[in-house]
Formats: sequence, structure tokens, C-alpha cells
Amino acid sequence: MELSHIEHIGIAVNNLEEAIAYYEDTLGLKCYAIEEVTDQKVKTAFFKIGQTKLELLESTDPEGPVAKFIEKRGQGIHHLAFATKGIESALEEVADKGVRLIDKQPRKGAEGLDIAFLHPKSTFGVLTELCEDKNK
Amino acid sequence: MELSHIEHIGIAVNNLEEAIAYYEDTLGLKCYAIEEVTDQKVKTAFFKIGQTKLELLESTDPEGPVAKFIEKRGQGIHHLAFATKGIESALEEVADKGVRLIDKQPRKGAEGLDIAFLHPKSTFGVLTELCEDKNK
Repeated sequence: MELSHIEHIGIAVNNLEEAIAYYEDTLGLKCYAIEEVTDQKVKTAFFKIGQTKLELLESTDPEGPVAKFIEKRGQGIHHLAFATKGIESALEEVADKGVRLIDKQPRKGAEGLDIAFLHPKSTFGVLTELCEDKNK
Repeated sequence: MELSHIEHIGIAVNNLEEAIAYYEDTLGLKCYAIEEVTDQKVKTAFFKIGQTKLELLESTDPEGPVAKFIEKRGQGIHHLAFATKGIESALEEVADKGVRLIDKQPRKGAEGLDIAFLHPKSTFGVLTELCEDKNK
């Protein structure tokens, strides 16, 4: 498996609008897209910095995974996504090495990427996402 | 202020050796350095992926900030570090915009970088570090 770069960092926030204002006005980044991912019950805002995106996540449902995360741990960094090639074989490889998969098969995530999550119990507490842009 | 890329992502772990084995054997990354930062009461292991480093952090002191973090929230992503130029003026700028600074002046961090932390209460829960490599 070859991981090429950090594709994005997911950050759980209570209020997307307020968080966007902070990243734009204080840190000088530019929000280039807002997208709702109904599957994950989130509204996301994207920023690009070098090779990596920041993906702010506001829950659209009090029972959604991001709402539950904030309830338990507060706002903050939610997950780390690595870009890979051949996501299916990468998933097989990590599963063979004992990692528990949240997604046994890749599914469609934000921006049309193929994505799959690894369980934080197997990854030293880091909710880890693999993703591949098959349009590239 | 111009942030150019994600310089590193700090990840708090209980046991550096076990976590290094996971990042090397399962994710295929390569640990290129281990360094003790006595100031922060941590031992750190570095990996490079694209423009960004992963910095695994094991506390060397049960009263240290990383030990306290793990006690409260468990192992996981600890902080996010942005590369900037002119760290002193960047700090002034964010402070002027209402961000609470943990470090009012830059200090020396791992790998000889000039670093300063912003308080997560001002940054939507993300412990945020600015850093500059003045040797470049």
C-alpha cells in the first residue's frame, strides 16, 4: 500500500458558518465549497492548504456520528484521511494485518471520492480514512 | 498571514514503539527520526507523507500535557500545525483578531522549528500550532 499525502483533515464544529468565518478571516484560508453529505448526516465546508484539504463538519442530525462525537469529546479534529491508489487492495491489506474496518468496501464520499474508514480502536485512537480519487 | 501547508499533525499515543510499528508495518510509512522534547515532556517519532509530517507523541511524564490529554480524551489526534512565514507577525495578527495565545512569543520546538500554540478555546476546539522553519 502506498499513501501519497494527507488528502484531508476532518474537523467537527457546532456551527459551520462561525467556523468558516474563523478559518477565512483569522487564518486567511478560503472556503471553496460547501456540500451536504446526507449519508454521513453532515454539512461540510472545504478549504485547501498545500496538498491537503480541511473539511469542516457540522452535523445535520443530533443522532449523526459528528453530533455524537462532539457530545462526547467536544469540537475538534475528527478524522485523518490518507490518499491512496487501489483503495480496495489497501483495505484488504490493512484488514489482513488485523485492522478492524468500518467500511469493508469503499463507498462514495464528499467530492466524489471513494472512501473507507478504519476503526479507531485498531489505529491508536485516530479515526482513519483511506480515499482515492478515481477521476484522476 | 499566509499559511502554506500542513507542517505536521500531532498524535498522542500511549506507547511510541507500538504506534510506530502500526504506522510502519500496516500503513507502510517510515519513521525517520525520534526526538525527545523535554520542554513539552514528550518523546516524538516522525513520519513524512507528502508535504506533511506525522508526529507521534508519547508523554515522558504523567503530569505532562500529552498525558493529561490522553487521560481526558484517550489516544488520538492532538494538534494541527500550519507552516507560515513571519511567525511573529502571524501571532500578532491572530491575537489582534481575538485569538487567545498559549505562546505569546515563538519558542523552539522539535526539529529546530520556531513554534507557537493557539488556544483551542479560540480555534473551535482545534489545538493549533503555527510554525516556521527559519533555516529554509
